[in-house]
Amino acid sequence: MKNESITSRDVDFAKWYTDVVRAAKLADYTSVKGCIAIEPNGYAIWEKIQSILDKKFKELGHVNVQMPLLIPEHLFNQEKELIEGFAPELLWATAAGDKQLEERHAIRSTSETVFCDYYKKHINSYKDLPKLYNQWCNVFRYEKETRPFLRSREFLWQEGHTVHATAEEAEKETKQMMDVYVWFNKEILAIPSICGKKTEKEKFAGAEYTLTCEDLMYNGVCLQDGTSHYFGQKFSKAYDVKFTNKENKEEYAYYTTWGKTTRMIAAIIMVHADDYGLVLPPRIAPKQVVLIPIGKSEEVDALCKKYAEDLNANGVVAYVDNSEKSPGFKFAEAEVNGIPVRIEVGARDLENGVITFARRDTREKITVSKDTDVVKYTKELLETIQNDMYQKAVERRDELTFTATNYEEMRDILNTQPGFIHADWCGDVDCELKIKELKGCKSRCISDEPLITGKCVCCGKEAKHHVIWGIQY
Amino acid sequence: MKNESITSRDVDFAKWYTDVVRAAKLADYTSVKGCIAIEPNGYAIWEKIQSILDKKFKELGHVNVQMPLLIPEHLFNQEKELIEGFAPELLWATAAGDKQLEERHAIRSTSETVFCDYYKKHINSYKDLPKLYNQWCNVFRYEKETRPFLRSREFLWQEGHTVHATAEEAEKETKQMMDVYVWFNKEILAIPSICGKKTEKEKFAGAEYTLTCEDLMYNGVCLQDGTSHYFGQKFSKAYDVKFTNKENKEEYAYYTTWGKTTRMIAAIIMVHADDYGLVLPPRIAPKQVVLIPIGKSEEVDALCKKYAEDLNANGVVAYVDNSEKSPGFKFAEAEVNGIPVRIEVGARDLENGVITFARRDTREKITVSKDTDVVKYTKELLETIQNDMYQKAVERRDELTFTATNYEEMRDILNTQPGFIHADWCGDVDCELKIKELKGCKSRCISDEPLITGKCVCCGKEAKHHVIWGIQY
Repeated sequence: MKNESITSRDVDFAKWYTDVVRAAKLADYTSVKGCIAIEPNGYAIWEKIQSILDKKFKELGHVNVQMPLLIPEHLFNQEKELIEGFAPELLWATAAGDKQLEERHAIRSTSETVFCDYYKKHINSYKDLPKLYNQWCNVFRYEKETRPFLRSREFLWQEGHTVHATAEEAEKETKQMMDVYVWFNKEILAIPSICGKKTEKEKFAGAEYTLTCEDLMYNGVCLQDGTSHYFGQKFSKAYDVKFTNKENKEEYAYYTTWGKTTRMIAAIIMVHADDYGLVLPPRIAPKQVVLIPIGKSEEVDALCKKYAEDLNANGVVAYVDNSEKSPGFKFAEAEVNGIPVRIEVGARDLENGVITFARRDTREKITVSKDTDVVKYTKELLETIQNDMYQKAVERRDELTFTATNYEEMRDILNTQPGFIHADWCGDVDCELKIKELKGCKSRCISDEPLITGKCVCCGKEAKHHVIWGIQY
Repeated sequence: MKNESITSRDVDFAKWYTDVVRAAKLADYTSVKGCIAIEPNGYAIWEKIQSILDKKFKELGHVNVQMPLLIPEHLFNQEKELIEGFAPELLWATAAGDKQLEERHAIRSTSETVFCDYYKKHINSYKDLPKLYNQWCNVFRYEKETRPFLRSREFLWQEGHTVHATAEEAEKETKQMMDVYVWFNKEILAIPSICGKKTEKEKFAGAEYTLTCEDLMYNGVCLQDGTSHYFGQKFSKAYDVKFTNKENKEEYAYYTTWGKTTRMIAAIIMVHADDYGLVLPPRIAPKQVVLIPIGKSEEVDALCKKYAEDLNANGVVAYVDNSEKSPGFKFAEAEVNGIPVRIEVGARDLENGVITFARRDTREKITVSKDTDVVKYTKELLETIQNDMYQKAVERRDELTFTATNYEEMRDILNTQPGFIHADWCGDVDCELKIKELKGCKSRCISDEPLITGKCVCCGKEAKHHVIWGIQY
C-alpha cells in the first residue's frame, strides 16, 4: 500500500526526499533555522555508521580524541586559504554572559586549526610520529539553503587528522582513508561510489590535493560523500608543526585530514528509497527483521518470540511488533521505516504449514514451509538483499553515466537527464566555469581512465584529464 | 619508581591532580581559554563510559537523538528560572560570515529548551508517551575558573530528556536514572556515591526537585557527579507541551532530565590515583593488562603473544608492549597510565619456571608458576582489584565522614579535615548561607536517615532534615 504522505519520486524528487525523511521519522526541522533534530530512527542509522567506521579506523591504528568546539579568530587567520575558503560560512561567538569577548571565536566548521595548534605543542621528534587522531563531533557551517542531512547548518561527522614524518607515508594515508570510504559505501551502504582527485578549483581550501568519493543519486544528481585531503607541509608551515627527523634535522611535518558526515543518510535515501518510504541495506539497518503476528493465537505469539530470540542469538537484529495496531498498519510502518525483512506469522498460515517473508527492497512476498530453518533462511535473504541493492544501484548509476565529446553534447545530456558525464578537459579553469553555466555542472573528480578524444569538451584544445562531471547537491 | 613529573598528593593535591592528568596523557590545555583537548588515553576512558552507560539506557527503553547546538534567545527566555540560572554562563553567537544575526543564539549549556520545543510539536496523545530520549553531546558554560575534566568551559555529557503522562511515572524515571548513576559509580568506577535530594537553593534552575549523586574525593572535597531532575509540569507549561489523556482531556506533560559528564574522569582520578599516576578500576580501563617481555628471547616473545591472544579471546583487553624502550621504562609507563595488571615475562624467570604479575592498585608483585592458567588467574585478579579498589574508596569515604551537632563542631571539622558532614538543618536558607561562610561549605543532599539531634546545626531551632554537607569542587 502506497504511503499517502509520500509524494511520488518521479513526480517531485525534492519533495519525495523530504517526505521520506519525515515519514520514516529520521529527522525534523526545528526552531533553529537550518538545523535539524535527528530523531531516533535517523540517529540509530548514524550510530551504526559510527560503530562500523570507528572499528575500521581503529583497526588501522587510529585513536579518538576531542578538541575544542571554539576556534579563536587569530588561529583561523594563520592559514590564509583556509580562512578565505570558510569565512562566509563561519558562525562567530562574541559574547559571554553580559560581556563582550576580547577575541571572537568561530564555532568549528572544520578543525585543522585546532589540531595543528595541538600538534605544534606535542610533536618534537620523528619518534612522536605518526599521529593518527580522529574525532567524532558536530560542526557548523552557515549555509544559505539547507535540507535535512543533505546540507544542514549543523551536522555530525568524523574528522581524521594525521601527521607523518614523510610525504610518502602521508600520501599513503590519504589514499588509504579514501579506500576505506569507498569500501564502506560499497560493502555497507550498497552504494557504488566513484573516486578521484578534485580539480584545483574544487579542492579543499589550503590542501595540496583532495580525493573525493562521489555518489550518483537516483535522479542523476551527484553527491560528494567523503573527502581525504593531502596537505603536504602547507599547514605545518602555517601552524609551525615541526619535528626532528632521523637525521637530526628539523623538518615540517606532513599532514592529512579526511571526513565523512551525516550526509551519508541522505545518500542512503536518495539511492535506495522508493515511493513506499525508506529502504535500508541490511548491513546498515539498525533493525533488520520485524516479526508480525497475524491473528490472536498463543502458537503465533510463541513462534514470533522464538524466531526473534533465535535470530538475535545469531547476530540478526530482530524484533516482534506486538503493538495494538492492525497487521496492515504494521506492514506499512515497517515498510516506510525501511526494515529489510518482514516475517509474517499467521494462525491460518500455520494451519497450512507456512510462514511468509517479505523483502523490503523488491516488496516481494515469499511463502516458505514453517519447517524452514528461519535463522539460516533469513541470513541468506539479508545477504541477497544487500547484494541485490548494490547491483541495482550499479545499474542505475551505469544507466545515468554518459560521455560527452563536445560542449553541445554536454548541454544536451544535462538538458535531458543529468548523471555522471565523462568528458576530457584541458585543465583550464575558464572551461570549468563555462561548463558550470550548464545548469551548474561541475567537475566531480579527475578519472584515472585514459582520455576519450584527447580534446577538451569545452574549448576543443588538447586535453590533460579525463574528468567526470555532474550537477551536485 | 616514583614518577618525577607528579607532585606528591599529600604535598599539593591540586597540583598532583593536574600532574596526573598530564602524566597519564588524559588531556591538555589548548589555545582556547578554559577548553581542553581530550587526548587518546582520556577519550578511551570516555568511550568505555559511554558504551556501558548507553547499553544500560537502552536496556531501560531509551533511544538516542541529536538536537541542535544553538538555542535562539527567545526560546531560552520562555522559562524564567532557567534563563536566570544559566544567563551568566551563556556563550552567544551573534554573527555569521560578515553579517549580524537577526536574533542571537546561545551555545547550548543544557538542552531543556530545544527538547521541549521539539516535544511540543511531536506529542499529541497519551499514545505518544512516554518519550525516552537521550543525547550524547558537547555543552558550553562560560566558567571563570576551570580545571581539566573537573570544570571545563566545554565538556561532554549525556542528557536524558523524558516525557510522561503521569507524575508518578515521571518521578519513577527520575529515581530510576539516579539509581543507574549510583550503580554505575559503584559497579564500574568503584566509587561509593551517596545520593539524595538537593535543597531548594541547590536544585537545578526551574526543576521541582533534583536528585544528586555525590562522590567524596581523596582529599575530602565533594564532587557532584550526576543529577536527575523532576520538573513536574513546570517546563511543559512554559513550553506548551500538552497531550490528550485517556479521559480525552488536554493535560500538560510530566518532564524529567538527567545527566552525567566527562567530570567522571576527574572523579576516577581524585578517588583512585596515587603518586605514581593514574589507577583505573579494571571495568573502566580501556586496556586492562599489559604484557612486558624482559630480555631478548623467542620463547618470551611467543609466550607474551600467546597470553595476549588468550586473554583477548576471553574478554580481557590485553596488549604486549613491544616497543624499543627498556623494561623499567615500560613498567613506569604502564603504571602512570593506570593499567590495572602488568604481566612480566622474563627469560631468566622462565628458566625458574615463573612469571610475575603486578597489581597497579597495591603495586604488589606476585610470582606464579608459568604453568598457571593465565586467563583464569588474570580474570580473578581483575575482579579482586575491582573489589579492593571499591572497598578502599569506601574506607576512605567513611574515614572522612563526620557528624556535627552545632556550628562550632562544623567549623572545627572543616578547619581540620573536610569531608561529608552529617548535620541537622531547619530548612532555612539563611542557615545554609551562614554555613557557606565556613570555607564555602554547602549542602550536598538531604539524607533519608533520621535526624541526629533534632536541632539545626546552625541556628539550634527545630530541624526538618538530616543533611549531608561538604566543600565542593
